[in-house]
Amino acid sequence: MSLYFEDLEVGQRFRAGPILMTAERIMQFGVEFDPQPAHTDEIAAANSIFGRLVASGWHTASVTMRLLVDGASPPVVGGIIGAGIDAISWPAPVLPGDALSAETEIVELRLSRSRPDRGLAKLRTTTTRQDGTVVQIVTANVVIPCRPV
Amino acid sequence: MSLYFEDLEVGQRFRAGPILMTAERIMQFGVEFDPQPAHTDEIAAANSIFGRLVASGWHTASVTMRLLVDGASPPVVGGIIGAGIDAISWPAPVLPGDALSAETEIVELRLSRSRPDRGLAKLRTTTTRQDGTVVQIVTANVVIPCRPV
Repeated sequence: MSLYFEDLEVGQRFRAGPILMTAERIMQFGVEFDPQPAHTDEIAAANSIFGRLVASGWHTASVTMRLLVDGASPPVVGGIIGAGIDAISWPAPVLPGDALSAETEIVELRLSRSRPDRGLAKLRTTTTRQDGTVVQIVTANVVIPCRPV
Repeated sequence: MSLYFEDLEVGQRFRAGPILMTAERIMQFGVEFDPQPAHTDEIAAANSIFGRLVASGWHTASVTMRLLVDGASPPVVGGIIGAGIDAISWPAPVLPGDALSAETEIVELRLSRSRPDRGLAKLRTTTTRQDGTVVQIVTANVVIPCRPV
């Protein structure tokens, strides 16, 4: 965690992974946070619209956050300070046994209008499974300190 | 789970909660999915920009999903089928001991252009803590089956 706003450039990319999505963890997450048949039970999932057990999108989003901390985010001073999410899409399901990796691209940088000691970065993070299929795209805004003067 | 697209109206509201956010669960979630000092350790959190332990935004998002399943979403046939998120904001932190509730408003309804057997609803879900402070607003698009003809 050593970069300041001035060290970042649009187009820089950062990667981390993989993290394995086991059936057990998919179901544990589902039971706690998204208790619908597709996420909690392999037999019930067979009768859901997915036809099989799939991870909750919020599980994929949470694992992607872990990948950001693990290196798929620019290593900025003070850590990853989220200022909100512009959008999340889940173009393909995450299945048991999938290994997820994430790559972030800096798509926009601007100084804060209200706080001259910080900037804002827009980061687009693409999460893929082992065969390269994209399972999530999230665009997030994060706050990044400027180098002290 | 008994409503079809035709049963929904813009402006309808659905509520559920509360769910208690304990320090223990905030830290467990943080260690697994968002291992930064503000989310994993009460002493380290005191030196973070939050000055105290706070829940990961993805923990709040995941608990909000649970509240949606528990009744803060319209009880539609086939369950909650997410088609993506338009935006998430976290206007205030979630602290240990907070009890979270969620209320969803249907803000838009339209028939699918490509699939005449389904509609799309835009749902705005506001998550609040016990004193009414808003801790998250998420706008989601969900797929809802039409009544069979």
